[in-house]
Amino acid sequence: MNESTPPPRSAQGAYGIAGEYVTSEAIYKKESDAIFSRRWLCAGRLEELDPSSSCLPITLEKQNLFLVRDESGMIRAFRNFCRHRGSQLVTESNCSSMGKRIQCPYHAWTYSRSGALTSAPNMAENDDFDENSHGLFEVSCEVFGGFIWVNFNPEETVAEWLQPVAKHFQNWQISDLRLGHELVYHVEANWKLIFQNYSECYHCPIVHPMLNRLTPYQGSSNELDEGPILGGPMGLADSSQTMSCDGKYAGPPIGNLTADQLRSVYYFTICPTMFLSLHPDYVLIHRIQRIDTGNSKVVCQFLFPTQSSDQQKLTPDQAIEFWDLTNRQDWNVCELAQKGMSDPAYQPGPYSNLESVVAAFDRNYLSELDSKRD
Amino acid sequence: MNESTPPPRSAQGAYGIAGEYVTSEAIYKKESDAIFSRRWLCAGRLEELDPSSSCLPITLEKQNLFLVRDESGMIRAFRNFCRHRGSQLVTESNCSSMGKRIQCPYHAWTYSRSGALTSAPNMAENDDFDENSHGLFEVSCEVFGGFIWVNFNPEETVAEWLQPVAKHFQNWQISDLRLGHELVYHVEANWKLIFQNYSECYHCPIVHPMLNRLTPYQGSSNELDEGPILGGPMGLADSSQTMSCDGKYAGPPIGNLTADQLRSVYYFTICPTMFLSLHPDYVLIHRIQRIDTGNSKVVCQFLFPTQSSDQQKLTPDQAIEFWDLTNRQDWNVCELAQKGMSDPAYQPGPYSNLESVVAAFDRNYLSELDSKRD
Amino acid sequence: MNESTPPPRSAQGAYGIAGEYVTSEAIYKKESDAIFSRRWLCAGRLEELDPSSSCLPITLEKQNLFLVRDESGMIRAFRNFCRHRGSQLVTESNCSSMGKRIQCPYHAWTYSRSGALTSAPNMAENDDFDENSHGLFEVSCEVFGGFIWVNFNPEETVAEWLQPVAKHFQNWQISDLRLGHELVYHVEANWKLIFQNYSECYHCPIVHPMLNRLTPYQGSSNELDEGPILGGPMGLADSSQTMSCDGKYAGPPIGNLTADQLRSVYYFTICPTMFLSLHPDYVLIHRIQRIDTGNSKVVCQFLFPTQSSDQQKLTPDQAIEFWDLTNRQDWNVCELAQKGMSDPAYQPGPYSNLESVVAAFDRNYLSELDSKRD
Repeated sequence: MNESTPPPRSAQGAYGIAGEYVTSEAIYKKESDAIFSRRWLCAGRLEELDPSSSCLPITLEKQNLFLVRDESGMIRAFRNFCRHRGSQLVTESNCSSMGKRIQCPYHAWTYSRSGALTSAPNMAENDDFDENSHGLFEVSCEVFGGFIWVNFNPEETVAEWLQPVAKHFQNWQISDLRLGHELVYHVEANWKLIFQNYSECYHCPIVHPMLNRLTPYQGSSNELDEGPILGGPMGLADSSQTMSCDGKYAGPPIGNLTADQLRSVYYFTICPTMFLSLHPDYVLIHRIQRIDTGNSKVVCQFLFPTQSSDQQKLTPDQAIEFWDLTNRQDWNVCELAQKGMSDPAYQPGPYSNLESVVAAFDRNYLSELDSKRD
Repeated sequence: MNESTPPPRSAQGAYGIAGEYVTSEAIYKKESDAIFSRRWLCAGRLEELDPSSSCLPITLEKQNLFLVRDESGMIRAFRNFCRHRGSQLVTESNCSSMGKRIQCPYHAWTYSRSGALTSAPNMAENDDFDENSHGLFEVSCEVFGGFIWVNFNPEETVAEWLQPVAKHFQNWQISDLRLGHELVYHVEANWKLIFQNYSECYHCPIVHPMLNRLTPYQGSSNELDEGPILGGPMGLADSSQTMSCDGKYAGPPIGNLTADQLRSVYYFTICPTMFLSLHPDYVLIHRIQRIDTGNSKVVCQFLFPTQSSDQQKLTPDQAIEFWDLTNRQDWNVCELAQKGMSDPAYQPGPYSNLESVVAAFDRNYLSELDSKRD
Repeated sequence: MNESTPPPRSAQGAYGIAGEYVTSEAIYKKESDAIFSRRWLCAGRLEELDPSSSCLPITLEKQNLFLVRDESGMIRAFRNFCRHRGSQLVTESNCSSMGKRIQCPYHAWTYSRSGALTSAPNMAENDDFDENSHGLFEVSCEVFGGFIWVNFNPEETVAEWLQPVAKHFQNWQISDLRLGHELVYHVEANWKLIFQNYSECYHCPIVHPMLNRLTPYQGSSNELDEGPILGGPMGLADSSQTMSCDGKYAGPPIGNLTADQLRSVYYFTICPTMFLSLHPDYVLIHRIQRIDTGNSKVVCQFLFPTQSSDQQKLTPDQAIEFWDLTNRQDWNVCELAQKGMSDPAYQPGPYSNLESVVAAFDRNYLSELDSKRD
């Protein structure tokens, strides 16, 4: 399937989700149990875990964890509290001075980078104290495509989970790209509205005039149209090399992309935390984090090939400016939708055929939510 | 009945309302259902709807609406969300550029000023899509006395509702007055405490020394002493022409007021959103809006006769300063009452006969609340 | 018992309290009923009630009270609302101008300093109005050791309650000391974490290097090791006279302390609102106030002997700087513990023998809480 002959698409008479899905605390809690505690969540880029400090406190779904490279160099994730009195262990201010051991700042209980309790002052007096049963609580953590993924209750490996887009990770050599720039946003909208917004270009003519010139909205097609990973390519206009204000490359095209791949941008949503946007010359990532029913945080990262001195210099400014503008246009309409859907009188409307992926996102979401409905 | 021979008044042994009425979320919600969703709410002054833009987003009881003049010039109120994906339609930033049609900023669905869906891009592909069933949701809206009134579930017309004070609207020619000045306040008190405060002058000697000189507190009488509209006149002291810091007119007396009317100020509460204060030379409006159990917003507007060039010039500063001072004195004691009544140990005390209208306000309020008690 | 021969201590295999005790709203409410509404709460120092104004609004456990010296000079506490419409009576802004009577700022109802209603304008018209049944609501209040104590439902006198530390109040002449300095803190931690932190010096080597030099952590012993008042002495290092940055006295030693008392600092927790720290030359008080499950206010007061002109001048700066530093070190680890214990995955760990008083605090707390469990 390629973008030159898009297949007919249909929203199958589907309607949007009810307003309670973006306002109800109970549904928010149900999402925690049914989705966010069972799915692989993107926790950042491998290169964010600076090898010199090699300890990084993170918050995922309001749960405090820290990432660390263990003695063998493997990335591991632990609950960020001491097994003694519960003090947080790794903080923004102490993480860079944390050495080969993780020492609690309260009573100096000390753990290895594999989570074992190695020292607990004065506890030897306690006859029944067993160091081995007081190691840190570990959370599943894997590295794939250069990203760190965390899962509180995994049912499969990340590789299995990402299989539908594995070939793209390979083609774009995503493991080898490096973080070049980051934009961070607070969006006053439920996380699902941000996913829905990314899943259609029906809004592009009115919301994104510049984007619509680079990739006309009719030129999109769907490679993956059912399930937790959805999306496909949009054809670049003849005058555009990539998505940027001037339409020109930010750097040399990536690796061994095919002619087709060089003339398209591929957009995928990886529910529930990531958007993957593959450009000929760079990869754009959106990491979406829930804050509450009506607020989200979005971290937008630009990944570029590592540069050798004889390569063409990177000129990413036009791409960054383009996506910053496009992002803000999107957050604005997401926030307007949050406001309207929060009205008690709101009733869902019908999807157009251009919103078939939004309908697919809704189906997958509702199905995952129902799988844990109590 | 006039103010020179006030009839005997009695609070009939009544006591104040319990503390829960100013603290309970459940009662707040019950008020929404029993009162605020069934009564005419003042939504502003007609002249605030600038004819050139003729679209005004408003929030009433946390519900987002917009006001618009339809093709025939009639004012209408619509729920402020699109029937497609729920995006808010009219915003502070787009309302002045909204032209003859209401176009959704998300996917460009477009509505007429009468609320009909007139254009929905790409929806023609949906076989079963019926434009006629996707018009905007309308809310009852009427103009009376130059004010815009909105009602989510009307049981009568505004004219029927305001019948008890209709003659005053006529005598003071309120439809023809124009908004001259506005004061806005945030009051940390339940809306009912603000109504109770306005309903008696028992507090005037200690709280309002200046007001008490202009209109001695014993000189009040009640024209309406039962029901949702309450109040009556207070006689001006011989030395005062009107309510203002210097006691002098802010402009020429209004129209054809009688001698009695020129020597009194008439105070009425129109439950649940308006105070109407009729002065010889101007009309003062307080619009009260609930924010939550312990917070309210008050918009205070001064209405003056339109001026012809040969008329005496308006000098409203002394009147504005007087009411700003008086308002702040009132909000202070309302906030003190909110604090004390929020104490779990609070027990209502007895009303004095000078608080007979407060007792009447309570009776009407409790009766309206009970009519929907579940 | 003295600090030179500390008895063996044991935490008896005890574990910490579950995370819900620092996060649950329901437990917070149960604490209100079972503990804070039945125990003597320290409301401040007698000398804070300036005799010239002699009216002080205070908030204890979110309840508004005011303290006043009655006609006989006795300190009394009243609910801070009028028996008429509930207005708050005494405020920060009017307390200094409140004269011999307490006059309500709303309708001028007036009370004596003993709480009797002495004047209510216009109420004489109400046939059935009885002034005697509309006096202010009084709350139990006693003075002990120069502190003002309030109790919403006392089961014993303050003297009975404080009997275990009565001799120390006497030895340190605490009634005669005077407030010399005050530090106020907002701590993002549950009140119990602050009590637990004060109850052990297991954390001192890593958290308080300076304190640990002045009073080595092994040199503590327990005088009171069960019940609502807990604690005992810590021996001063040979090089230290008192707790201060330079280890030198802030002023002359207090009264008739024994040689042993001059070589120790005595630390007591008086659940649920006070820490009492007795130094050779000054007394340090911490007053702990709950704000919500995860926030507390701490007022830290330094009490010194009154000075006659021929006495050595006070030089309190080194002591104040020392405790400000030590306090901040403590609040930091309390806040880290609050963060970690709030993690749903948190499981309590075992106490070391150096935390036997923490275990005793927990036992007393849980027992008091259970005594009112519904």
